[in-house]
Amino acid sequence: MPLIRIDLVEGRSNGQITAIADNIQKTLVDVYALPERDRFQIITEHPANRMIALDVGLGIERTAQVVIIQIFTQAGRSTEDKQAFFQALAANLGAVGVNGEDLIVGFVENSPADWSFGFGRAQYITGELEKPGD
Amino acid sequence: MPLIRIDLVEGRSNGQITAIADNIQKTLVDVYALPERDRFQIITEHPANRMIALDVGLGIERTAQVVIIQIFTQAGRSTEDKQAFFQALAANLGAVGVNGEDLIVGFVENSPADWSFGFGRAQYITGELEKPGD
Amino acid sequence: MPLIRIDLVEGRSNGQITAIADNIQKTLVDVYALPERDRFQIITEHPANRMIALDVGLGIERTAQVVIIQIFTQAGRSTEDKQAFFQALAANLGAVGVNGEDLIVGFVENSPADWSFGFGRAQYITGELEKPGD
Repeated sequence: MPLIRIDLVEGRSNGQITAIADNIQKTLVDVYALPERDRFQIITEHPANRMIALDVGLGIERTAQVVIIQIFTQAGRSTEDKQAFFQALAANLGAVGVNGEDLIVGFVENSPADWSFGFGRAQYITGELEKPGD
Repeated sequence: MPLIRIDLVEGRSNGQITAIADNIQKTLVDVYALPERDRFQIITEHPANRMIALDVGLGIERTAQVVIIQIFTQAGRSTEDKQAFFQALAANLGAVGVNGEDLIVGFVENSPADWSFGFGRAQYITGELEKPGD
Repeated sequence: MPLIRIDLVEGRSNGQITAIADNIQKTLVDVYALPERDRFQIITEHPANRMIALDVGLGIERTAQVVIIQIFTQAGRSTEDKQAFFQALAANLGAVGVNGEDLIVGFVENSPADWSFGFGRAQYITGELEKPGD
């Protein structure tokens, strides 16, 4: 279960936003072999002056169409897996109009006991869902 | 100190939203013996197409009134305690109109030094507040 | 890389909000020697009844102008450093109209492999950026 917060500058069409959300999920399914229906996304649009993303000194020139993606998910993925995910994500989002220079991504990790997907049950603990990595 | 982000689909009344927020807090107080005034909640309403929550393969049929709750709080609670919390939360929110199938919850953990509740002081460190578990 | 979520009650002017965001960044640069352009902030305004912040029993009397700041950043800073940050932040925000009693701050930690600042690269891992603490 990743819970994904997608924050972006307002001005994209509904179709573009849907394509971004779909391609984030597609990348998770492709790279992490996530079940297709393991999808939890909260999308928030902001005025341009409410999202600030500078270049950290990397010389990145961002446009006004920054996208910040926060992925809350279980710990246990390797650095190499994260790198593969970032790379595939940039390719998949590039295909739907998110420039590489506008794409900022961060993982925040927790553990299987931290999730309930419905009915007040911790489905990774009850065994209704297989724990990631099992 | 939990900081709770409550994201829900727009369309509920102010009274319903207040009841949801109140019952989340009541559950924390009841299950975790949290002080009643240890309450920090940020509630955000979203258009239905900006919150996506599928069923992870569990066969859950969600309505259009999904509620996603993120709880940022100190590490140290057991899996059993989290399960008790999820269960009580579903019961308490069920009583105010949140269906079990629409309730998604995730914990994200930090530590006592990570919080300041006012005046730039880390009150768990200064001793103004007792550390959880002490 | 800290990613900072700044949630505040609506009603402040654009100039006030910019001053708050600027002073959060200034504090990070001053206390943590962060590069000035290592700045990532998402600012969200909320109706007053959508942000609830009680006093935890500390006797803090908040106004209607609460500011909650969440800092997602790499692990590794000491308790003393966090205390210094909280203290400097309260001073710097006090100078731009955020009362100490309205300032709530929480850290959530991750690691260098968890970030990509653009182009799908994990710049702390590729060596394009020096890891914090190196």
